[in-house]
Formats: sequence, C-alpha cells, structure tokens
Amino acid sequence: MPDTHEQGYFTEENSAEVVIGRNRNARDARLKEVMAVIVRHLHAAVKEIEPTEEEWLKAIMFLTDTGHMCTEWRQEFILLSDTLGVSMLVDAINNRKPKGASESTVLGPFHVAGAPELPMGADICLDRKGEPMRVSGRILDTAGNPVAGAKIDVWQANDEGFYDVQQKGIQPDFNLRGVFRTGADGRYWFRGVKPKYYPIPDDGPVGKLLRALGRHPYRPAHLHYIIEAEGFDRLVTHIFDPDDPYIDSDAVFGVKKSLLARFEQVSDPARIAAAGFDRPFWDVNFDFVLSRAGE
Amino acid sequence: MPDTHEQGYFTEENSAEVVIGRNRNARDARLKEVMAVIVRHLHAAVKEIEPTEEEWLKAIMFLTDTGHMCTEWRQEFILLSDTLGVSMLVDAINNRKPKGASESTVLGPFHVAGAPELPMGADICLDRKGEPMRVSGRILDTAGNPVAGAKIDVWQANDEGFYDVQQKGIQPDFNLRGVFRTGADGRYWFRGVKPKYYPIPDDGPVGKLLRALGRHPYRPAHLHYIIEAEGFDRLVTHIFDPDDPYIDSDAVFGVKKSLLARFEQVSDPARIAAAGFDRPFWDVNFDFVLSRAGE
Repeated sequence: MPDTHEQGYFTEENSAEVVIGRNRNARDARLKEVMAVIVRHLHAAVKEIEPTEEEWLKAIMFLTDTGHMCTEWRQEFILLSDTLGVSMLVDAINNRKPKGASESTVLGPFHVAGAPELPMGADICLDRKGEPMRVSGRILDTAGNPVAGAKIDVWQANDEGFYDVQQKGIQPDFNLRGVFRTGADGRYWFRGVKPKYYPIPDDGPVGKLLRALGRHPYRPAHLHYIIEAEGFDRLVTHIFDPDDPYIDSDAVFGVKKSLLARFEQVSDPARIAAAGFDRPFWDVNFDFVLSRAGE
Repeated sequence: MPDTHEQGYFTEENSAEVVIGRNRNARDARLKEVMAVIVRHLHAAVKEIEPTEEEWLKAIMFLTDTGHMCTEWRQEFILLSDTLGVSMLVDAINNRKPKGASESTVLGPFHVAGAPELPMGADICLDRKGEPMRVSGRILDTAGNPVAGAKIDVWQANDEGFYDVQQKGIQPDFNLRGVFRTGADGRYWFRGVKPKYYPIPDDGPVGKLLRALGRHPYRPAHLHYIIEAEGFDRLVTHIFDPDDPYIDSDAVFGVKKSLLARFEQVSDPARIAAAGFDRPFWDVNFDFVLSRAGE
C-alpha cells in the first residue's frame, strides 16, 4: 500500500505533471492537449509569481467580477483578451498571409450583418456630422491584378467615436455602414466621415486593471473592412489614421504598420467639387491585396 | 513619423514584449511584475495551442459561465483553481515547512469560526450517525517535545460526506466541529465519526470540464485541522483515510503522503468500553509537528 501511495502525490516540484497526469482518460485528444499546455504554463506562472494567499484571492475576485460584468451586451472576458493582446495573437495565428497580401486585424464587436449594398461613391455618413472623408483604392491579388466582384463590407465610428449601434435613436440606423462590389478594374470608392479615436468600455474590472497598469483605454481612429471574393481568403482588417494620438498605443494592439493609411486634407475647391463635397475633406487611398486559399 | 511607427507594433513574434511594454508606467511594481509573468505565459500558451477562433470563443464562454456560476455561496473560480492544482500550489508556496514539521493542505470552504471549545475526549458527533471513531495523538515541536496550550480546531464531514453547514436542519448546528486545547503532555483526543469521501460541487462549468477530462469530482475521506500555538507557525491541514477509494485521485490534489493516517477498526469489547463507545469503532492516531516562526 505505501508503495502505490509513494508516487503520484502532488508536491510543489511535480505539481503540473500530477495535474496533467490526471487527464489521462480524457476522450477528447485536443482538449487533453490544450489542458496540458494551460496547466503547464499556469503552474509555471504561479511558481514565478509566488502569490501570497491574499494575491491569489484578489485574482479569483478579479475573474469573478469580470464574469459578473458579462451580459448579453457586454463581454468583459473578450475585453480582457483584447487588452492582453490575446485576441490579436489568435487573429495573427489564424490569418497568416503570404508575402504581399494585406494583413488582418480583429473583427471587433460592432460589425452588423445586412448593411445596405450601395453604388460606388455613395456617402455612408447619413447625418452629415463631422469632417467629410473620401476613401478609395483597389482590391488586388498578390500578383497586382485587380479583383472583380469583390464584396467590401465597411463600417466605422462617427466623428465622436461612436458606432450607430451605440447611439440608437441618435444616429440613423446603418449610419456609416455599407457594402460595395468591385467591377472589372477592382476599384472602390465611397464617402464617409473622418473617424475619431474612442475608448473601449472601461467602467468594469478591465478598465480598472488598465488604470492600475497606467494604460489608457483608447483605440486610434480606424475604418473596419471585411473583403470577400470568390477563390480568395476572406480579409478582416482595419485601416488606421497614422496621425491619431493613440496610433502607437492601441488599447487592443490592433495596429499593424502595413495598415496605416494616409489621410490627406483637401481644401482645393476643384477637388472638393470633383469628390462631391461642399467643404474641405480628407482623402484616403488604400489598396487591399487578397491572398488565394492555400497560397 | 514612419520611424517611430516602425517599432513597437504588435506581431505574432513580439506579441508578449509589446503587451508587457505597455505597462511601463504602472505605479504598482508588484502588479507590473505579476502581469509581465502572466502575459508571457499566456502568450506562450496561445502560441503552443494555436487555438482556432472557435476554440478561443469556447474558452471565453467557459470563463464567462464560470463567472456567472459564482454567487455569495458558490465560488466556481476557486473550484477551477482547486481542480487545476493551483490552490494546492499556492498553499505549498506559502507554507514551506522545515524538515520534520507536519505539512499543510488547503483550508477548504467549510471552516466555521466559533466552534465550541470542548474537554479532551468529547464526542463531536452530535447525532450518533455512522461508525464511531476515536482520534488521538500529540502536538510536538520539531525536536519532539510536547507543545502545551496548542489550540486544535477540528472539523469533518459526516458518514454521508456532508458538513453540518451543507445540511442545516438535518444535522445539529456545530455537528462534527470542536476546539481542543493541549495540556503539558501535548496530547489530544476526541471522538467523532468515520468520515466518507464526497464530491466537490460538480453541477457547474468546472464539473463539466472534469467530466470532459475523464476525471471524477471526489475528495477522499479526511479530517480538517487548524492548529495554533504561541511561538509556532499556524498549521492548516487534513489527515486522510489511506484506504479511501479516492485516496490517489483527490479532485483538488490535497493529499500528501505524510498526511495519511491509519484507521484501525477495533471490535475488542474492553477497548470499546475504554474508548467510551458501545459498539466497534475506528481508532486513528496522528501526531502533528509544529514549526517555529523562521525555523
């Protein structure tokens, strides 16, 4: 009897091995593999941190508060994942692109299915608020050929940093959302409003953690895109205003160098008229390069 | 401007460094250190696991469900910590003992302050249910000398595996709880009931995870102790029944080899009478060795 007991009891030294060994009968091989990695890193982290019992309880209460903050409308664990860079890491792992293809970034919580399909050049800013913006460019393959029939689903926050769904009754429905389809030349263009930085929701445990870490909750101004075309990988990404005050410190780490656009301020009356505006506007040009499945 | 943008953007390769770098202004040095370890291991784990986006969302929903399960009466994140061996690891780190001293194990959620102080030999089993048990032994220092005036706070589940607080109105208040104080000889003895294994609460996300991992939710039969004496380290521990069917697979990893007691079944009428029982009983003998602060 003492011999069977001799092996297998938990000690500070063998802790991860003992816990992982307990899963030997797991039916789901993937779950077993995932839990082994989680337990190994969890125990290694605890051994490095050497938390006091008070610190451990503080961590338990942080997770509990984060769970209690989650509702149908608020996902505080996703915010935690976002602000710790985990969401972007998962995005990067699942969207490795061949050289030359546009890079992805996170979808975010504000995409709405069923936005209206609009003709090229349409103004998605339905309330004329803010500084007008024209966005144009091409959808290309990695060889530089135009992609015809690409579906471009675009959405953005308004000049105050709010999406329509955050201001129901204040912004018109489907404000700053549109779906466009490229022709043979692969070109797209539409009108919108110069976006502004905005904070992620910071009135919960994650906001409290950010403050304790000396971090701000802001995302730099950006436009969201989902671009789909037959035979190509779906591209979920943003383009960013490089002059935004938070461009180097996005709270969710979504910025990539290749996704910095150029926002040119245009006050020349001829160009204003040609773009269909009645006042100075921001001109943004950005080409997207799609990869083919398995490329 | 491009040069400043060049460094510091998040990539799959530098992800942990970028996230950790964002905490450079944290006022709390300990929090900063803890978060660096957490982020490093979190990112390393994600890179090893390479979760799909569906798997990542499953993890988010598991944490959310675990948070939603927490109430004033139920702490599902502590159960998660327990079943992943984290609670025992934190206990081990915070209770390293000198050679020869009794080892600690987790407190558990069923300790109640204010249990009655009883004379040595008292029967803490107030409802006479189950098989009687006598527990005796000595409180010693690491040199083997008796410790006088040690306060022994003991509690246990009943013969069906329930604590009094789990069966209010069924078990008498303070059933199977007592506080004893040693005399000059350091000896203690009291009567109780042979404990039985019991499951941790398994009707939530943690129970579901255990089932998916092919694990059971049981803790082997044990008695809880808090032993305190002036000038000595407080000892929070259990003793275990080595013949319990779950002794080698405690769901919370609380068993240590040094905490296995011996449960001897006694049917000799003279010994039964001497122990103050009217039927066969289990005789348990266990000495506890206390360490001195800084020993």
